Amino acid sequence: MPITPDQQAEIDSLRATPRQTLRAVSEGMENHLYVAHPVLDHGLVRVVDYMGDDAAICQAARVSYGTGTKSVQNDEGLIRYLMRHWHSTPFEMCEVKFHIKLPVFVARQWIRHRTANVNEYSARYSILDREFYIPAPEHLAAQSQQNNQGRGAVLQGEEAQRVLDLLREDAMRSYDNYEAMLSQDGQQGLARELARMNLPANIYTQWYWKVDLHNLLHFLRLRADSHAQFEIRAYADIMCDITRDWVPAAFGAFSDYRMNAVSLSAQGAAALKRRLAGEVVTQENSGMGAREWREFEQVWG
Amino acid sequence: MPITPDQQAEIDSLRATPRQTLRAVSEGMENHLYVAHPVLDHGLVRVVDYMGDDAAICQAARVSYGTGTKSVQNDEGLIRYLMRHWHSTPFEMCEVKFHIKLPVFVARQWIRHRTANVNEYSARYSILDREFYIPAPEHLAAQSQQNNQGRGAVLQGEEAQRVLDLLREDAMRSYDNYEAMLSQDGQQGLARELARMNLPANIYTQWYWKVDLHNLLHFLRLRADSHAQFEIRAYADIMCDITRDWVPAAFGAFSDYRMNAVSLSAQGAAALKRRLAGEVVTQENSGMGAREWREFEQVWG
Amino acid sequence: MPITPDQQAEIDSLRATPRQTLRAVSEGMENHLYVAHPVLDHGLVRVVDYMGDDAAICQAARVSYGTGTKSVQNDEGLIRYLMRHWHSTPFEMCEVKFHIKLPVFVARQWIRHRTANVNEYSARYSILDREFYIPAPEHLAAQSQQNNQGRGAVLQGEEAQRVLDLLREDAMRSYDNYEAMLSQDGQQGLARELARMNLPANIYTQWYWKVDLHNLLHFLRLRADSHAQFEIRAYADIMCDITRDWVPAAFGAFSDYRMNAVSLSAQGAAALKRRLAGEVVTQENSGMGAREWREFEQVWG
Amino acid sequence: MPITPDQQAEIDSLRATPRQTLRAVSEGMENHLYVAHPVLDHGLVRVVDYMGDDAAICQAARVSYGTGTKSVQNDEGLIRYLMRHWHSTPFEMCEVKFHIKLPVFVARQWIRHRTANVNEYSARYSILDREFYIPAPEHLAAQSQQNNQGRGAVLQGEEAQRVLDLLREDAMRSYDNYEAMLSQDGQQGLARELARMNLPANIYTQWYWKVDLHNLLHFLRLRADSHAQFEIRAYADIMCDITRDWVPAAFGAFSDYRMNAVSLSAQGAAALKRRLAGEVVTQENSGMGAREWREFEQVWG
Repeated sequence: MPITPDQQAEIDSLRATPRQTLRAVSEGMENHLYVAHPVLDHGLVRVVDYMGDDAAICQAARVSYGTGTKSVQNDEGLIRYLMRHWHSTPFEMCEVKFHIKLPVFVARQWIRHRTANVNEYSARYSILDREFYIPAPEHLAAQSQQNNQGRGAVLQGEEAQRVLDLLREDAMRSYDNYEAMLSQDGQQGLARELARMNLPANIYTQWYWKVDLHNLLHFLRLRADSHAQFEIRAYADIMCDITRDWVPAAFGAFSDYRMNAVSLSAQGAAALKRRLAGEVVTQENSGMGAREWREFEQVWG
Repeated sequence: MPITPDQQAEIDSLRATPRQTLRAVSEGMENHLYVAHPVLDHGLVRVVDYMGDDAAICQAARVSYGTGTKSVQNDEGLIRYLMRHWHSTPFEMCEVKFHIKLPVFVARQWIRHRTANVNEYSARYSILDREFYIPAPEHLAAQSQQNNQGRGAVLQGEEAQRVLDLLREDAMRSYDNYEAMLSQDGQQGLARELARMNLPANIYTQWYWKVDLHNLLHFLRLRADSHAQFEIRAYADIMCDITRDWVPAAFGAFSDYRMNAVSLSAQGAAALKRRLAGEVVTQENSGMGAREWREFEQVWG
Repeated sequence: MPITPDQQAEIDSLRATPRQTLRAVSEGMENHLYVAHPVLDHGLVRVVDYMGDDAAICQAARVSYGTGTKSVQNDEGLIRYLMRHWHSTPFEMCEVKFHIKLPVFVARQWIRHRTANVNEYSARYSILDREFYIPAPEHLAAQSQQNNQGRGAVLQGEEAQRVLDLLREDAMRSYDNYEAMLSQDGQQGLARELARMNLPANIYTQWYWKVDLHNLLHFLRLRADSHAQFEIRAYADIMCDITRDWVPAAFGAFSDYRMNAVSLSAQGAAALKRRLAGEVVTQENSGMGAREWREFEQVWG
Repeated sequence: MPITPDQQAEIDSLRATPRQTLRAVSEGMENHLYVAHPVLDHGLVRVVDYMGDDAAICQAARVSYGTGTKSVQNDEGLIRYLMRHWHSTPFEMCEVKFHIKLPVFVARQWIRHRTANVNEYSARYSILDREFYIPAPEHLAAQSQQNNQGRGAVLQGEEAQRVLDLLREDAMRSYDNYEAMLSQDGQQGLARELARMNLPANIYTQWYWKVDLHNLLHFLRLRADSHAQFEIRAYADIMCDITRDWVPAAFGAFSDYRMNAVSLSAQGAAALKRRLAGEVVTQENSGMGAREWREFEQVWG
């Protein structure tokens, strides 16, 4: 269970007390505020605060005194133009703050995105909870034979069971021993900053993560992608839904010009032009290497 | 006059339409929203949006589900502790977006603070207004004889008048010729991106500038300082007032532990300890160089 | 003349004194070290230091103890793979430090790239030289009628002459008055930090600019592009040549996968697939707006 | 043993092949290049590359064509002035690249310093080695009773033995099971990106870490400090030694004006002035809170 009754009561209380503001408000985002969206078996994503909306992007791009045009259509056209031509700074003018609960091995990938603000729950200072990520059976995948950093078929039968048992038993034993080392019952008790080293990477941690919209979209492009590890993608997918509700025009442009866009190398573009002219292009006469040609054919047939 | 009646009407309209939100609200900051605070002769500072308040700093530091303690006193104690011990990340959890109108030579100093988001009015795309900074007589200072990058006494009489005349005449003539080159009346008209090169550094530009509280305080420490050039300090001073109203506890801690703090070198600390023990310390036996000793005596006598 | 005989003597002396090092050496880059490449009428680009080479990118990607493979071919394949799949961190492992002399209006565009280190010549502290950018006649372009931030045809005849005269006269007069205000001959002399405000944006400044290879390539992609203003492109073009000599494999991959790559939106990719299948696609049935369709046809006919 | 004979042979080979360069060379740093300095039980720090020296800091501060003054004394004076007055950009002009092997829980603290470039060994792609940090008996500390994130006395006797046994056994068992899950002997084998979640935080990872001198010194100030966790301090201490050999003047200034400097709050400075004037200052009349007063007395008696 990701949140306790006490925590839920705090969330309910925050959602029950609207206040007046003169700031830009995104109705779509107000609906998400404080709500705990569950992810994986014990994780969550919550929006804790946000700044700006679609109109704020246009207002900044125009350096205007008011809110810019009253026309939503004009604003959307400008946003699509900005996205298409890589004018990234207006998208930096929106900001969002998330509360995220996630396994440590996911946190380690996540933190590589440096252009964000982070406050993590400190295991030097506090004692972590006994919560570990154990994959659902359908996500227990074999090592891919083609791709060193990918997954193959889902494990079945005894092998699957053995893996789940090992993960669960090692997690429980590590945590038991973490507690045993910390205990001050009849002994001094090991320092927290040392005891934590016994905990495996599937234990859950949590943090506040604050980022501007441009860098959030960059994160989502890489982490909601099919090459990203499933576990971080589970977070990115939910954050895509939230972002769509927050800034629908910006997210639409992002979807068309980034997420679902296709990048062609100089050689790829030349190959397509030759094909459009009726020529038959092969790897040999394309100027592409074998691996790049394979990637090209996956998209273009 | 920094803002036109149309702009003022836009501002009034924004201030007249409060909306409901579930987010953290700083009443002190709501009073500033959109209002144009005049700076120098044609400049301004306006808060366009903000995120967070004093409680949000504590909430992030605690990675909590709710708003943390209900006790303002506890929050203030935590904030002072965090500031004193250089725990900067909780202060990054607040964000503010300003609209600033400022002379180009001030903008060039300002932009050196890289950890911020900026959208500047584009003189490639648009035509700049005829607005130039001309110092008030009491700020027309001579070159300092001691400090290569400082000011001496205020210029007087004919010299002062001559300087003001030159600044005004060169500004007006440059702008006349800027317009003459751009004009498409009986000629093609020079590209805006080229014509702008004729404009001097006291012309006003404007931008949206968004920054987190930690980096804002760092900016204020350097730019509201007595060593900063007067013209950028004029902006920083007003931003200090705004920040005090926004996050009073954080600004109080900043004031005590940064702005009005004193840093002692290893040698300076040793010298003070010897003095406290009754010893007479001279530059010669202090281990400090002549210049550092002078700086030390300015503070400690 | 961009450099004085004294400066040239300093450069010659630095180039005449090779030393021993155990670090990675790029022979292509050693040839550029300290040499002043002229840009525009008084500008220059000089490489002052560098770190790493193509092999260093691979070494970091592999987190290896030695230099990785001895095979240049394997290294090139890895570099192309990293570039194609947006693995940017290995490219951050090379670094370069430039000394650049450039007009202030170019410097103002340039500084918007925040992920770099900068030390600029200070006009608060020192007196600037009498050097201004005056465009060559073939770069004196009219305002574009299609594109608000672009150039049209080259100005001709009397209009061109008038513009050049205005730029020259205003520059000289501004500088004369800058000197007159600074002068301590029979007067106090205005503070440098104030006098500089009279100087127009075509005066030359200079700075040391240090950046990692990933961020340099990002800068080059935007600034060596046909949409960049000619004056900054002049710098970027020379820096492309230097980078090609420094890290030939990385620059080749950058050229194929970034500079000469084509990005297709979701709608653009769908339109091409339909064309390849023999269908006739029009703006109306493409899902693209008028402006985007025009951009699409410019590339694909 | 931190490095294998093969790795040592690679290091020896790199150190045996000096090359010529025209770049700035720091003799003190050349001695460190590639050498593996052991840290903790299996960790290491190696300098893989560097850029610049003390003179390069001055050259950038002066934006000069050559190497600046030939006088080492003048350079040192300038460096001390820059450090004392928080002119940080010239220190950003030196860069260093380290290869570091470190326990994961140390890596998680380290990565919070965002202004650096990192390439980490990937446990998605590769299999980690069986190497775990087990504290030496003299570093096996109890939880501090005063400080939630600190250490108390060293554990003794049976309790110490029990902790060491638990850490060792859990590490070995987790690694055995990691291997069992990965094994493709008679089974498919779990994906590496999943299997790694079973490994505890004391397993060793490694990365290339590249940073400029200003940000390195900031890291060292926080991590070579007595409040830092012992395990990361062990790395920072060695990096201090290396930095002293690399840029002795900059490190000396850092030592005097940062590491061994004392910061006084507004209240603290006022209290000292009153003491110097012969007054008796107590917590009650100092304006300081109880905790801050305790910290003040620890320094000033």
